[in-house]
Amino acid sequence: MTRRLLLLSSSRDANGVYLLHSSSAIRSLLGESVRHVLFIPYAGVTIAHDAYAERAAVPFAKLGYDLQSIGDASNPADAVESAEAIVVGGGNTFQLLATLQDRKLLEVIRTRVRAGVPYIGWSAGAVITAPTIGTTNDMPIVEPESLRALGLIPFQINAHYTDQHPPGHQGETRAERLEEYVAVNRTTRVLGLREGCSLRIFDDAIALNGVGTAPVFQYGASRAEYSAGDDISFLLAA
Amino acid sequence: MTRRLLLLSSSRDANGVYLLHSSSAIRSLLGESVRHVLFIPYAGVTIAHDAYAERAAVPFAKLGYDLQSIGDASNPADAVESAEAIVVGGGNTFQLLATLQDRKLLEVIRTRVRAGVPYIGWSAGAVITAPTIGTTNDMPIVEPESLRALGLIPFQINAHYTDQHPPGHQGETRAERLEEYVAVNRTTRVLGLREGCSLRIFDDAIALNGVGTAPVFQYGASRAEYSAGDDISFLLAA
Repeated sequence: MTRRLLLLSSSRDANGVYLLHSSSAIRSLLGESVRHVLFIPYAGVTIAHDAYAERAAVPFAKLGYDLQSIGDASNPADAVESAEAIVVGGGNTFQLLATLQDRKLLEVIRTRVRAGVPYIGWSAGAVITAPTIGTTNDMPIVEPESLRALGLIPFQINAHYTDQHPPGHQGETRAERLEEYVAVNRTTRVLGLREGCSLRIFDDAIALNGVGTAPVFQYGASRAEYSAGDDISFLLAA
Repeated sequence: MTRRLLLLSSSRDANGVYLLHSSSAIRSLLGESVRHVLFIPYAGVTIAHDAYAERAAVPFAKLGYDLQSIGDASNPADAVESAEAIVVGGGNTFQLLATLQDRKLLEVIRTRVRAGVPYIGWSAGAVITAPTIGTTNDMPIVEPESLRALGLIPFQINAHYTDQHPPGHQGETRAERLEEYVAVNRTTRVLGLREGCSLRIFDDAIALNGVGTAPVFQYGASRAEYSAGDDISFLLAA
């Protein structure tokens, strides 16, 4: 399957460095021919889309790419149709998905990525490449038509994966939540992306990057942790 | 409006004591006439409904109430119709709401509570008394028909409210999430229930209990923190 994806847990690494921790991965994905990238800021809730695009433009400019916001396009679908690369920022995953559904953009993005247009997403922008947003950590502040997302990959992503749990807190741990997910969605695997980790998917090749390990949850199997360099190609076997 | 609700953030207090920290509130809600309570364990995901009901029965038995599970009823709607009191346990809020919708129980529970049948809910069981489950912390592991819930109160509840945020974690704080909620749902207030806190609502009277304060989020207003004894009746003004 044709696809060129770079999926980041977060826009920042543990030190708060914005996107530039992924410079070489961004360059490698976009290559020499791309000059302009289309930014989709719809996941932003309390940040205005313009302001979000201005912030995201900075690291891309440093790498030599001109970032244009879909918010400036007269016709969003046309902007996706003609995009050289698609960049989807983080924020609230429900808000992002609801907006893409409302503007009828899911299918056009899916089609373009399957035609080889590079896709970069972080946080919510990574989560929506999965079959559904059922493994988001976000609050359902708006109601999408459905939880179905881009389905560019056959497994689910949990961004900002963490083992930390506030002391005295009676809510579930992240691992417990994902174990519940696979308990009711038994045929779907979930990959947890810790902060600073990313996935690069070129067609049927997948590579994990970053210093932390990434857990995979699967019904009936013990949780396994994978590191950069490990073969995780089983995740792409639907 | 007739209603008798006891809404707990959690089934356990910070020391892990199961329900009994709310003994006097439970007794006060159920009063002298109630002998049997109907338990709805649908929020349980990795715990079997039978096992969940057995666990929940223990503290109620200590208080002199016989807890029967809706899972043992041949017709769940009939069980709600004839219930002396309704008790809804925590777990995954999406799972709970989807099951209630699937079994067409939302309207029958709503009708019974509005007719004066006492309702006790903790965690997910408290959250679903709000207009929607849009302020749940849970993962959308299943897709309900809609996020609309019981609507027994006019404000939203966030259970397990916490100020804690793991260091180095780039995801949103709980307060940021709820600020995003009111930014897109501008006419709805949200009450955060910290662990060990509870709300008692008798018709149009509402009281906060517990040692911690409870924040209220409202669009265009600063977050306010309320303590037990404070007048929070504005929350019931729709």
